Amino acid sequence: MELVSENRSFDGKQLVFKHPSNTTGCEMTFAVYLPPEAEDGKVPVLWYLSGLTCTHENAMTKGGFQEHAARNGIAIIFPDTSPRGEGVADDDAYDLGQGAGFYVNATRDPWKPHFRMYDYITQELPSLVMDHLPLEDRHGITGHSMGGHGALTIALRNPERYDSVSAFAPITHPTQSDWGRKQLSAYLGDDEGNWSQHDSTLLLDELGWKNDILVDQGASDQFLDLLKPEALAAAMAKRRQPGQVRMQKGYDHSYYFVSTFAADHVEWHAERLL
Amino acid sequence: MELVSENRSFDGKQLVFKHPSNTTGCEMTFAVYLPPEAEDGKVPVLWYLSGLTCTHENAMTKGGFQEHAARNGIAIIFPDTSPRGEGVADDDAYDLGQGAGFYVNATRDPWKPHFRMYDYITQELPSLVMDHLPLEDRHGITGHSMGGHGALTIALRNPERYDSVSAFAPITHPTQSDWGRKQLSAYLGDDEGNWSQHDSTLLLDELGWKNDILVDQGASDQFLDLLKPEALAAAMAKRRQPGQVRMQKGYDHSYYFVSTFAADHVEWHAERLL
Repeated sequence: MELVSENRSFDGKQLVFKHPSNTTGCEMTFAVYLPPEAEDGKVPVLWYLSGLTCTHENAMTKGGFQEHAARNGIAIIFPDTSPRGEGVADDDAYDLGQGAGFYVNATRDPWKPHFRMYDYITQELPSLVMDHLPLEDRHGITGHSMGGHGALTIALRNPERYDSVSAFAPITHPTQSDWGRKQLSAYLGDDEGNWSQHDSTLLLDELGWKNDILVDQGASDQFLDLLKPEALAAAMAKRRQPGQVRMQKGYDHSYYFVSTFAADHVEWHAERLL
Repeated sequence: MELVSENRSFDGKQLVFKHPSNTTGCEMTFAVYLPPEAEDGKVPVLWYLSGLTCTHENAMTKGGFQEHAARNGIAIIFPDTSPRGEGVADDDAYDLGQGAGFYVNATRDPWKPHFRMYDYITQELPSLVMDHLPLEDRHGITGHSMGGHGALTIALRNPERYDSVSAFAPITHPTQSDWGRKQLSAYLGDDEGNWSQHDSTLLLDELGWKNDILVDQGASDQFLDLLKPEALAAAMAKRRQPGQVRMQKGYDHSYYFVSTFAADHVEWHAERLL
């Protein structure tokens, strides 16, 4: 794990690291914000998974999360959204390949050798950061758009690891969306039976979630037809799942939406992790 | 004035406009954040001038100002840092030409035709925004680095227009710094007598300022030798100028520094403008 940059921010530290990854077979970059409390002891962790076309950097620079993490005394980790590099498969489309890992383990060529973001996020990166940073083994997870899909599906499948889950404008039902069918087909093949483990609406309907869930969605989001918040809301209502899907009047899909509600989410996770 | 983008942010609006400028002879872009109060009436304005290499966009996306402007009920305007475009002179160096207007009216070729950022910021853009946006004729001004230099020099020379001034890591003494001598020489010529109107240390010594001044400076800023906070601090102390230059332990020159202290500055201006 090699330090790429360090900046003081809200009396804590905004750090960027890179490391060779066994899981993805390439060098991976991630960012972590450590609050002032981390100088004196271990702090809980909130994982923030980013959306299509993003790297570790977008939420780190535009989300305004540091202020809220400092105030609440929790760390936030910002992983990259896919493997990257010359030897890694890619596609000309913005929504497939590098920058669009969809948080799955690909089983099909050409993606299979490197596109293993599910294992990277749930296994390798947690193990690495717990070994090297002052972090408690206590985790919440959130994300935006494709990252909201990642957060929800990963939490629902791993309730023993995560104690809180929320999402900003998540892709909720990828098996029925053009943000999903194309990618799941490419990464996992055409047998749709293999897709359901990566669809939070289907997972929630099947498994439920042990605590409450917080989802914020801009009511003027330009991608509502692809995100399908109504699918997740219906599954939550049907299952009597504690939680809320908040439709926020006037907000779009941008980081102006994410930063507006970042304080609510960080505080909400902190209440459940501390 | 043509609307380029509009995003809801903290219940207000983050807007970007472009317009043909008579002053700079090219199309100019600027951003403005309007707080929720602007729906019902006019609000005071804080001008934020950006630093070398920046456009209207850096502080808008990375400064986290919207939250604080919304809470305090003031607008923030983010102008560009220079004229731009194909017909506009430029230089290969990052610190001269496009992205480096230094908030002066150039009197030397090739800069003279377009590089008139002093008049653009003090005359044309205020007139334009007052005509088209719900803004009170009540102004504060701040900025970062080269923009801190712009804020201080512009306020000190125009006390009838601005009621509050602050700065983040300003270039305080450009007549004695490599961030200044090169540019003032290029834009204004080698007669150093013409430079003193663009040096906040000299201006403060000569004119003082009607109210108090707030300056934040990272103590671990990588550009301290160019910024020379000690020059401004000495001039303030010598003149018994109300105000403070706060050396902030551990902070560098980045937007992680700016965003950390953005709340303090916005609130400080709001107290003096409302």
